[in-house]
Amino acid sequence: MPEPTELVISSRRIHDGRICNLREDTVELSNGRTALREIVEHDPVVAVVPLDENGDVILVRQYRLAAEEALLEVPAGLVDPGEALEAAAQRELREETGYRAANLRRLAGFFVSPGFCTEFIHVYLATGLSESPLDGDEDEDIRVERMPLVEAVRLVEEGAIKDAKSVVGILMASDRSSR
Amino acid sequence: MPEPTELVISSRRIHDGRICNLREDTVELSNGRTALREIVEHDPVVAVVPLDENGDVILVRQYRLAAEEALLEVPAGLVDPGEALEAAAQRELREETGYRAANLRRLAGFFVSPGFCTEFIHVYLATGLSESPLDGDEDEDIRVERMPLVEAVRLVEEGAIKDAKSVVGILMASDRSSR
Repeated sequence: MPEPTELVISSRRIHDGRICNLREDTVELSNGRTALREIVEHDPVVAVVPLDENGDVILVRQYRLAAEEALLEVPAGLVDPGEALEAAAQRELREETGYRAANLRRLAGFFVSPGFCTEFIHVYLATGLSESPLDGDEDEDIRVERMPLVEAVRLVEEGAIKDAKSVVGILMASDRSSR
Repeated sequence: MPEPTELVISSRRIHDGRICNLREDTVELSNGRTALREIVEHDPVVAVVPLDENGDVILVRQYRLAAEEALLEVPAGLVDPGEALEAAAQRELREETGYRAANLRRLAGFFVSPGFCTEFIHVYLATGLSESPLDGDEDEDIRVERMPLVEAVRLVEEGAIKDAKSVVGILMASDRSSR
């Protein structure tokens, strides 16, 4: 049995923005029907789980308007056009926490919500940390918080850490470091 | 030190769609600067990890236009307006797999991408499965696939299962069932 597919018949652009675009595609399904699909276009993202030599993870707290609250997350940001993933991971880590990593190891990669959004997040474990600050985005107000990885896992399980990249990154970092 | 916040000064609606809306807010940061924030509004979602008495997980494969490929995922869907989360979880499970669950246990909840999107996914573990089909959405072409939970964990680690709700759900279901 062939894989299910959808053939795009027409596409209408609704918005071209700064961090996302929106279009509406008309598709033909494998059963012959047609359907509308709203697609939010979003550049890829890198997220970093920075783990120091004491087993502490370095997290960032910032207000998230979409969540209507301040969230505690792993450092992350958009990959610049043409930028290599590992270079983007080092840059975001330096901008948001002031550290650079001697070692980056890929933990996971995932679509955040593939039913409508193209955003894909690449998650790295960063170790061998040393201070190396880099000025970040003036539009961001970010506070650094450090805690044992096991405490971060507890916050994930309690639902206090609650965004996809941080949940995935912290759970996978914990799995790796316990093997 | 107070939590960082952002005060919305003005808001412009760009699109009101079927599964998402888009607006652009102007905010005042705690440092006094103003910034623009594009916000995609999306209703909450329930995702279900259905685990049968043999330790097999029931997954669904469907084409995802935003990912430009067919993905293997846990069953999931939008919560209808006014619908309770557990009722939505049972409905989506029946529509997409033909099973209902005697037991639902909450595993996690997370924002998919809180930098710009309001979507929050509630993830449940479903056990005590029995056949109870319910007609689903005619706009969807969904294939059911069953495999041992340990095999699904392997596919997550290899990156073959690669969407946020499925990665989180399968990792947390595996953690729970190994304790």
